[in-house]
Amino acid sequence: MTNLTIALDMMGGDIGPPVTLEAAVHAVTEFPHLHLILCGDPQALNEGLAKYPQAPSSQLQIEPTEQVVGMDERPSTALRSKNKSSMRRALELVESGQADACVSAGNTGALLAMAYYVLKTLPGIDRPALISSLPTISHRKVYLLDLGANVNCDSEILFQYAVMGSVLAEEVEGMERPRVALLNVGEEQIKGNDQVKHTAQILSSVPSINYIGYIEGNDIFTDKADVVVTDGFVGNIALKACEGLGKLIFTEVKRVSGKNLFTRIMARMALPILKKIYARVNPDQYNGASLIGLRGIVVKSHGNASSEAFLYAIKEAMQEVTRQVPSKIKHKIETLLMERP
Amino acid sequence: MTNLTIALDMMGGDIGPPVTLEAAVHAVTEFPHLHLILCGDPQALNEGLAKYPQAPSSQLQIEPTEQVVGMDERPSTALRSKNKSSMRRALELVESGQADACVSAGNTGALLAMAYYVLKTLPGIDRPALISSLPTISHRKVYLLDLGANVNCDSEILFQYAVMGSVLAEEVEGMERPRVALLNVGEEQIKGNDQVKHTAQILSSVPSINYIGYIEGNDIFTDKADVVVTDGFVGNIALKACEGLGKLIFTEVKRVSGKNLFTRIMARMALPILKKIYARVNPDQYNGASLIGLRGIVVKSHGNASSEAFLYAIKEAMQEVTRQVPSKIKHKIETLLMERP
Repeated sequence: MTNLTIALDMMGGDIGPPVTLEAAVHAVTEFPHLHLILCGDPQALNEGLAKYPQAPSSQLQIEPTEQVVGMDERPSTALRSKNKSSMRRALELVESGQADACVSAGNTGALLAMAYYVLKTLPGIDRPALISSLPTISHRKVYLLDLGANVNCDSEILFQYAVMGSVLAEEVEGMERPRVALLNVGEEQIKGNDQVKHTAQILSSVPSINYIGYIEGNDIFTDKADVVVTDGFVGNIALKACEGLGKLIFTEVKRVSGKNLFTRIMARMALPILKKIYARVNPDQYNGASLIGLRGIVVKSHGNASSEAFLYAIKEAMQEVTRQVPSKIKHKIETLLMERP
Repeated sequence: MTNLTIALDMMGGDIGPPVTLEAAVHAVTEFPHLHLILCGDPQALNEGLAKYPQAPSSQLQIEPTEQVVGMDERPSTALRSKNKSSMRRALELVESGQADACVSAGNTGALLAMAYYVLKTLPGIDRPALISSLPTISHRKVYLLDLGANVNCDSEILFQYAVMGSVLAEEVEGMERPRVALLNVGEEQIKGNDQVKHTAQILSSVPSINYIGYIEGNDIFTDKADVVVTDGFVGNIALKACEGLGKLIFTEVKRVSGKNLFTRIMARMALPILKKIYARVNPDQYNGASLIGLRGIVVKSHGNASSEAFLYAIKEAMQEVTRQVPSKIKHKIETLLMERP
């Protein structure tokens, strides 16, 4: 098996090195062909690594950086003033070819801005997208994009998103001819705003995309589609509204625990089951997101993620490297340019 | 107390007269000053009413109609060909002044199209909106609009929505200076698409609207705002995505019931509590929606609603009549036109 190198932004996320280091050590232990470049404060990283004397140190390389991008920092500020940050360095390692991919649990907006600036988009792609998979009732995953990379999307960008989502679902999840749908306010052809209607026309004209039509918000979770395409404004708000509803349901279950003895006992018993289910269905916790459409692989893990989630993001990046997602997207876009009327 | 007359579309909804009649009888029994005009098939209504010999029949008047708008019928088809339907008649009774408001559990799209055509919008209002209240963690309600009446909304329409939502929250829920927020992908001023940014500018310039800024999707449910404004495309998708997630959580709880004995017992015990909580938090079931911005009061009850939900919708309509919501909106818009720079 060929070696595989991934650069990690070790300082990102709400916790930083304690979480990212644990995940890194697990990853190199599990995958002997994996090489990780740990970008971050060298002192913190060396001290942290001392806790893992059995770690295969030859697979771990520290890349010292001076700055950290704050979780609440403005993307424009981070882009301007944090060019010595762990996040920036991890992206630069991908750009220079020293790493095959990078993973960060840092500030999403800053990562988007820096990745776009450092890596640039693939030929034929105007804007990158933030994409993540969500659970469905059938336990088959569904990909939703864009989750907030671009709030103003015309039909051309939505079309590119459909292509990118389709390639990711096919390559990373192994879905054959993924069913691609457009998120809309109804399933009938006459429904929707102008961008969506025009995107539907384009998608209907290209046979190599398995376009199945419009779906409504509730059907994101019913396994009607493998890839659900929408603009970053709608995608971000829909995902976060779901997160908010999930939290509300849990608050209510806890509140019931304060009522009479019977409901209190039942609610107490229900809570662990609910928590388990919630962890599986909560879109915010489910897993990380990928930035696609760039000339390099960037995976975003959650800011408040556990080391398991960060490890999951590393594995996602490995899969995208192995399946050569960026070059597959580039190839698909080129094919489609010839297919389109 | 002055008399109050409400026209009911008795044929709307998945079940029709059995549900709508039960609610109507309950309503007139509870409110002796309420007069209901029951629009629908006279035979079905008379037969149904025979089951309620104690009903105060002087408060119930049957308005015979010939047609029914199908739940899946296209709005344009219904508008063109169903002008003798129970839905259309109920709206006409409001238009002619014979009823103070109307309630329907029928096809939402058809109701929107017919209401807009029959009643027209208030002066200063370009488009009506569909608005509903949702629960929050504090048990204080939050109003969300637009839920799908208009998919293309410019800043002027979003501004009008903010005004209408604010008036409804103040008059129907008795909220003092309701906190009005714009739904966005972040809380910072630089976030969002052009329509949202421009609407924020307008709202910031009118002191009589208590505009508090942007909120993200998850904060719909956290009692940060009393009125959350967005366009019908985003509002519809966000609401339905929440509905989909809610259903997914319930499917998962049921699925757990099939596992080992311990989790099976726990899940079985948890289910009734969860159902109760779900009924309270499921946006789709929570209650009906109002069409606001029209020269008349129209309340939409859910298509698969129980008689309790239809009764709730009747009460909502009564409250809007008592508080004279349309004339308050008209007045507020006139005031704001003078306030705006």
